[in-house]
Amino acid sequence: MSNHNKSNNKAAPASTGLRGQSAGSTEICTVGQSGTGLTYRGYDITDLAQQATFEEVAYLLLYGHLPTQSELDGYIKRLKGMRTLPDALKAVLEQIPADAHPMDVMRTGCAMLGTLETEHSFSDQLDHIDRMLALFPAIITYWYRYSHDGQRIDTEAPEVDTIGAHFLALLQDRTPSQLHADVMNTSLILYAEHEFNASTFTARVCASTLSDIHSCITGAIGSLRGPLHGGANEAAMDMIEQWSSPAQAEQGLLDMLARKDKVMGFGHAIYRTSDPRNALIKPWAEKLAEAYGDRTLYDVSVRCEDVMWREKKLFPNADFFHASAYHYMGIPTKLFTPIFVMSRLTGWAAHVMEQRDNNRIIRPSADYTGPEPQQWVPIEER
Amino acid sequence: MSNHNKSNNKAAPASTGLRGQSAGSTEICTVGQSGTGLTYRGYDITDLAQQATFEEVAYLLLYGHLPTQSELDGYIKRLKGMRTLPDALKAVLEQIPADAHPMDVMRTGCAMLGTLETEHSFSDQLDHIDRMLALFPAIITYWYRYSHDGQRIDTEAPEVDTIGAHFLALLQDRTPSQLHADVMNTSLILYAEHEFNASTFTARVCASTLSDIHSCITGAIGSLRGPLHGGANEAAMDMIEQWSSPAQAEQGLLDMLARKDKVMGFGHAIYRTSDPRNALIKPWAEKLAEAYGDRTLYDVSVRCEDVMWREKKLFPNADFFHASAYHYMGIPTKLFTPIFVMSRLTGWAAHVMEQRDNNRIIRPSADYTGPEPQQWVPIEER
Repeated sequence: MSNHNKSNNKAAPASTGLRGQSAGSTEICTVGQSGTGLTYRGYDITDLAQQATFEEVAYLLLYGHLPTQSELDGYIKRLKGMRTLPDALKAVLEQIPADAHPMDVMRTGCAMLGTLETEHSFSDQLDHIDRMLALFPAIITYWYRYSHDGQRIDTEAPEVDTIGAHFLALLQDRTPSQLHADVMNTSLILYAEHEFNASTFTARVCASTLSDIHSCITGAIGSLRGPLHGGANEAAMDMIEQWSSPAQAEQGLLDMLARKDKVMGFGHAIYRTSDPRNALIKPWAEKLAEAYGDRTLYDVSVRCEDVMWREKKLFPNADFFHASAYHYMGIPTKLFTPIFVMSRLTGWAAHVMEQRDNNRIIRPSADYTGPEPQQWVPIEER
Repeated sequence: MSNHNKSNNKAAPASTGLRGQSAGSTEICTVGQSGTGLTYRGYDITDLAQQATFEEVAYLLLYGHLPTQSELDGYIKRLKGMRTLPDALKAVLEQIPADAHPMDVMRTGCAMLGTLETEHSFSDQLDHIDRMLALFPAIITYWYRYSHDGQRIDTEAPEVDTIGAHFLALLQDRTPSQLHADVMNTSLILYAEHEFNASTFTARVCASTLSDIHSCITGAIGSLRGPLHGGANEAAMDMIEQWSSPAQAEQGLLDMLARKDKVMGFGHAIYRTSDPRNALIKPWAEKLAEAYGDRTLYDVSVRCEDVMWREKKLFPNADFFHASAYHYMGIPTKLFTPIFVMSRLTGWAAHVMEQRDNNRIIRPSADYTGPEPQQWVPIEER
């Protein structure tokens, strides 16, 4: 052991978080390598966000190719047929209090689903993944409506076809407008996949033990919950809703920067000059502002963008204009990160399947910095 | 992008699983470096297993030093005071069917606990960890007794002090013998910690996003569930209980080796000539066999050990003699891995706290082996 001479109280080496170290190979995604900066199976995020539906993108990620029209029609029909919550899962969701963290609801709902519909063979993996894709909007809205409104909702909503519209319909008890359905569609595409981020890597580590799909996704939800990962759009919302004009936003932001407060929704670990997803969500935020009839939150957001670039050369990432967009659609702030789960499930699941296809258990080493070998001391001599 | 010239159908590079790559530093544990091969905070596993109680070891791992007698007395009292399951958690456990995977019960129970007793601040982390330590035996046995026997058990069991005896008392509805309590104590010590194994690494990745403790532990349970990680003692049990004599075991094992079947419970990724935990559990298995009055399963196990060494130079790891030991105590095979959870929780939690103390989000890179940039094709042209 090389560290015997170290004492117990020295500073540990700085944690590197495996930054820049390859933990495996993937065919699913590139970040900051080509096109506008993000590709899913070779397709640029700009093409996908402007021309595809989320169900098409989910199919691409999970089944490996863009669907034909008949494949897509069949896929949407299949997902629509999987929207019924098991009674035992409803009973569990009814036990979760209204003040629970919504990501804990997603984590528990997914974990419970796995006890009822266990993946006994990897040959069934896509059935379980599609089922989660169809059911996650139902899980979060069933809990939300029951705990907040005392309503036991029917999760079928046969009048809506898409996952984004399904979520809005269950949450708001009405068929969403075409504009809102379109924004949800784009949003779900933008959040679907992002290479070896921490939640996806969690799913792959779990998959590498050959555990079941619900364990992998439950673990990923838990990692996405962390404030350094998911949740930046919630933090951005908390910030911008304090301000009622662009001028007030500018002053507030300058004060934050002077205090060296962390400003969420800006900058990125990999993108250097812009996040390609920002240019794709921002125009939708403006359309929503126009339709809503009050541009304040959008104008506040634009001023934040200007100030952050002028003062810090930091650009908005995918999360920043998502805050105002979701808010204009009437989505409670605390449900923003669960939407991320509904979307990123597709990327997580694609990575789990890829890990299983070429697996070795992920088991790194550690540098020992602890105490030298110690003699046992009987308790009466301590 | 360096891989543009690669096609979509080539073989991916062999997955290396980060083997031999450091993913951080730790003061908690060494494997294969000094003493008999395993140390917890510098103390050799042989000293700990032969002289400590599990509660002492849990205290060592979580609080950083061996407790004095009064610290230990206080700790045991504290844990005993935390054994009451919340009603909402009981209601959830009652919804989980008898044929569910017991590790899914642990995963769901931990996830649900986090919705009821959420960790709002890291300054409360040890309270939540101690609560899980006290409650995990109650979670698995409450579900087991309700789903299998139709009994709603009282989980207090004030007549027993230790976690191992608590588990046996709830499972079997009687105060365990001193022998059984002692074996559980040793077993929980042996499984408590093992450096950056896959479930611990899962907990650290989750912790690195600054997520809550229940998410970290839920994720770790999901990874331990995988057959390449936890569960080897269950697989060993399934194997040895087929054989009713050492001679039959020898022939059966030789047949398995001839068919190149995987034999669980032998060899180790890091230990080369023996697993130090085997010498510590094996004598207990023999004592249990004597007390039980039928040595068959123990003698079968010893013959397997002899044959595996003679034929393959493979030694039993921690799991192999755990199978017969647990079986002699009357523990159903499918509850073997949940016992591992009750123990390893201490190691996972120690690693989560260590990660939080010196954190950087764990976000490795990936080697892209997927398709080149692709032109978008409208759906009617596919």
